[in-house]
Amino acid sequence: MQAILLLTVSLCLAAGSLAKEPHPCKSPPLLEGSLALAILKEKTFGVERFAYNAFDERVHVRVLLDIDNKTIYSDTLILYKEGIAFEIFRHNQTCKKVPFKDHWKPVEIPKDAKFQSQVIIGSFSAPGDGLLVNNWSGEVAESPVKYLITFTEFGCLPVHGWYDMPDQTLLSMSFYDIVIGVEDPDIFIPPSFCDKVELNSDRETTSLFDALMRSL
Amino acid sequence: MQAILLLTVSLCLAAGSLAKEPHPCKSPPLLEGSLALAILKEKTFGVERFAYNAFDERVHVRVLLDIDNKTIYSDTLILYKEGIAFEIFRHNQTCKKVPFKDHWKPVEIPKDAKFQSQVIIGSFSAPGDGLLVNNWSGEVAESPVKYLITFTEFGCLPVHGWYDMPDQTLLSMSFYDIVIGVEDPDIFIPPSFCDKVELNSDRETTSLFDALMRSL
Repeated sequence: MQAILLLTVSLCLAAGSLAKEPHPCKSPPLLEGSLALAILKEKTFGVERFAYNAFDERVHVRVLLDIDNKTIYSDTLILYKEGIAFEIFRHNQTCKKVPFKDHWKPVEIPKDAKFQSQVIIGSFSAPGDGLLVNNWSGEVAESPVKYLITFTEFGCLPVHGWYDMPDQTLLSMSFYDIVIGVEDPDIFIPPSFCDKVELNSDRETTSLFDALMRSL
Repeated sequence: MQAILLLTVSLCLAAGSLAKEPHPCKSPPLLEGSLALAILKEKTFGVERFAYNAFDERVHVRVLLDIDNKTIYSDTLILYKEGIAFEIFRHNQTCKKVPFKDHWKPVEIPKDAKFQSQVIIGSFSAPGDGLLVNNWSGEVAESPVKYLITFTEFGCLPVHGWYDMPDQTLLSMSFYDIVIGVEDPDIFIPPSFCDKVELNSDRETTSLFDALMRSL
């Protein structure tokens, strides 16, 4: 896993400002934000707006992807506790409702992640010029996906993730414009035009990534 | 150029905090720092410690690269004004001195770069949790290399660069631990064991990237 090496070797050179090794942390339970997504092998790029509710175990994501120069939009609401994902098509007020079988994954540093380094994005030479972050590496439980993730030291907010998939695909996720809290709690409630939609049991979605890909 | 799309489409979704479009800026003339380098097609990863002196037009870089699971180290001092690059081998106190024919490239947002978006890495919901940055895109002068670069709003420090090379290679550079100023000015002076080395005119280096690759 070469991506992991990226930060492993950085320990040799980085002028790290580490005083005490940080502990794995958990992000605040209510978040909104954006992320820039790049699936590098397939040259797929996109952006995502997400809303995250760890109390009710719900995630709402709107994705705009560029695949082979074709732009694709999706709007997905996942209710982990209920085991249901809604694919929402607001332009014609329709909905698909599919079983969702993954367990809840909070935004956090996994307990078995390995601390790699503490660095400053930018600089602490002047106020407002820098951000203190921690780099962690590990392997996703029950899968051969290896990751290298960067979270802020204060606030425990996601900054960046590299995911090395089994088929050699490298996935990059850059987070930005995160807000702690959720402005509109209704974002976690399926829209009324989804109420009478039957569950399509022919399809089953087993992960957030799968849900996003399947809804395209 | 799909990488450029990454931020272009983000304008559609990003909850940007843009008040007034920023102007291209130039970094402070003396800098030290690190960067994590990834050449994605070739699965080459590495880290670099750099010192930068825009007054004398000198750059000193120490690179640790992982190519095909082989780790390679290089130490290069480039004197742009003099048109010379030194490849330094401290372990046996030897040196190579080669002509260097590139023109000086300051760390800055090129004047013809296109402003893409202003975003926060992390969050402004709590103090110390976020960093305000600007994304710019463009094409390197006299080459078909397209770029997408991120610099801090305050201080004009490099944060990240995507470079889309002509052969479809995607180069990612993540900067960190930047210090404004240079602790040891001697870092820009060739070590004494380089004094009597003859210029090897058989080899000519035409860019910083070329210098780094050739010195491996």
